[in-house]
Amino acid sequence: MTDKTQIATFFQDLQNRICQAIEQADGKAKFQEDVWNRPGGGGGHTRILQEGNVIEKGGVNFSAVHGEMPLALKEKMNATAEDFFASGVSIVMHPHNPHVPIIHMNIRYFEMSDGTYWFGGGIDLTPHYIVDEDARFFHESLKETCDAHHPEYYPKYKKWADDYFYIPHREETRGIGGIFFDRLKEGEGKTKEQCFEFVKSVGETFAPIYTHLMSKNKNKPFIDTQKNWQLLRRGRYVEFNLVYDQGTKFGLETAGRIESILMSLPKYASWQYDIKPQKGSAEAYTLTNLIKHKDWLK
Amino acid sequence: MTDKTQIATFFQDLQNRICQAIEQADGKAKFQEDVWNRPGGGGGHTRILQEGNVIEKGGVNFSAVHGEMPLALKEKMNATAEDFFASGVSIVMHPHNPHVPIIHMNIRYFEMSDGTYWFGGGIDLTPHYIVDEDARFFHESLKETCDAHHPEYYPKYKKWADDYFYIPHREETRGIGGIFFDRLKEGEGKTKEQCFEFVKSVGETFAPIYTHLMSKNKNKPFIDTQKNWQLLRRGRYVEFNLVYDQGTKFGLETAGRIESILMSLPKYASWQYDIKPQKGSAEAYTLTNLIKHKDWLK
Repeated sequence: MTDKTQIATFFQDLQNRICQAIEQADGKAKFQEDVWNRPGGGGGHTRILQEGNVIEKGGVNFSAVHGEMPLALKEKMNATAEDFFASGVSIVMHPHNPHVPIIHMNIRYFEMSDGTYWFGGGIDLTPHYIVDEDARFFHESLKETCDAHHPEYYPKYKKWADDYFYIPHREETRGIGGIFFDRLKEGEGKTKEQCFEFVKSVGETFAPIYTHLMSKNKNKPFIDTQKNWQLLRRGRYVEFNLVYDQGTKFGLETAGRIESILMSLPKYASWQYDIKPQKGSAEAYTLTNLIKHKDWLK
Repeated sequence: MTDKTQIATFFQDLQNRICQAIEQADGKAKFQEDVWNRPGGGGGHTRILQEGNVIEKGGVNFSAVHGEMPLALKEKMNATAEDFFASGVSIVMHPHNPHVPIIHMNIRYFEMSDGTYWFGGGIDLTPHYIVDEDARFFHESLKETCDAHHPEYYPKYKKWADDYFYIPHREETRGIGGIFFDRLKEGEGKTKEQCFEFVKSVGETFAPIYTHLMSKNKNKPFIDTQKNWQLLRRGRYVEFNLVYDQGTKFGLETAGRIESILMSLPKYASWQYDIKPQKGSAEAYTLTNLIKHKDWLK
């Protein structure tokens, strides 16, 4: 039987293991933890890493909150249930070196007192410079994770990520996508246990993927213009998170713990007027490939 | 007779004069101009200044657009008119020195083919460090500008600015406010000409106010921790502009010229986890005073 306690316990344990893996791959930084309580019930463990060897700023957050359904949530979901429970793990990592990509992962579970529940989540990668080999590795790893559960998951959730991690006002994807899913529940031949197994696999795949990309790229030399490009790409990341990201928007609207929500923003970001990379440059290559529905496995 | 051509002509001329005043006060930077056309009718002159002596990044934009009412606009305004005309000047200045405040000014005119029209605008100041003397000078100048037109303008529009330039998720005002007004039109004893005269005065008061604050503060020495605090305050500026600013939101939603809209964002901004200034510090003093409904004239 998959119940909320079991799910939250897995999430919290996953947070511990991911933090250990990141600390080990970073070699210097230690996460600082803030334990917080939500006035309406539950709380979280926010873990922030700053000024590591590889990671400039990152967060691995766990929360498990419950209580009376907030009015905003009721309206948003058109729900009548009185109480809710929500738990999840959220990660964003901003590295120092522009050759190491930004990564984001989130897995979550939500249930209401009327018995309705679902899982959601996703992983997406935002390289400052797109490297085909790394992009293929990332998507192959996700496809393998998905394929072990259902042959339709990777194509379906890959498309969903392309559509979700998109910045309309820039006509750019945030990065090279990944997978994104929501409202996953039993039915169509699968049980709640099987949904949870899939979510677990997504969570477990994070550390090996990202520690590989950290190790592979952390010692690559870079110059000032590449650092500047990284700050500009982080500016886009800020634009996506503040304008479009559903989790962030909901957090801001419902007065969630603001420092935990906005841990996703980079230490430094930049905006410069009307930057157009030189034709044929690595920056231009990246920009040209920030598009939906590209097959990264090729 | 105050018609749209006369208004747009004033706006464009004001843009020229403000750019000259800023260039002179800066002593180094020259504005670069981009002239752009809007597919549906009209266009603008975007003027950006980068890496001056005093100003790190700033913009003084003029636009005058017209044509068929965009659907988003019709819905937003619950309007039936077929055509519209809109013109305005928008300014944001981000200085290098943390002792020079960020400033924003906007004046605008909107009319529809059914004869409906209104003026709107505002000026607000965002000091990285609040200095009572400068805050008083700023609000006294605005009060004087307002009082020359109507005794109720300053108190009414000062309150409006406090409510508008507010970041709910931080429970902070963006800066020390200023004035903000919208839907200003003839009636209650005033003519359209008188409304326009007020808008003109608001536009004219910008350059003397800001060049004074530039000159007074540009040579003040600063240390790394003050520069870092400036970057953090700019992070809040980004949060306000991307999450709450109505003009920015509307621009992003209606696919306006993105580089002109987002000229308001600083060259560099920073987010760091859970920063709490030391008790009794200048940073703490600033944070304590980022509140609504403070009387800055005292």
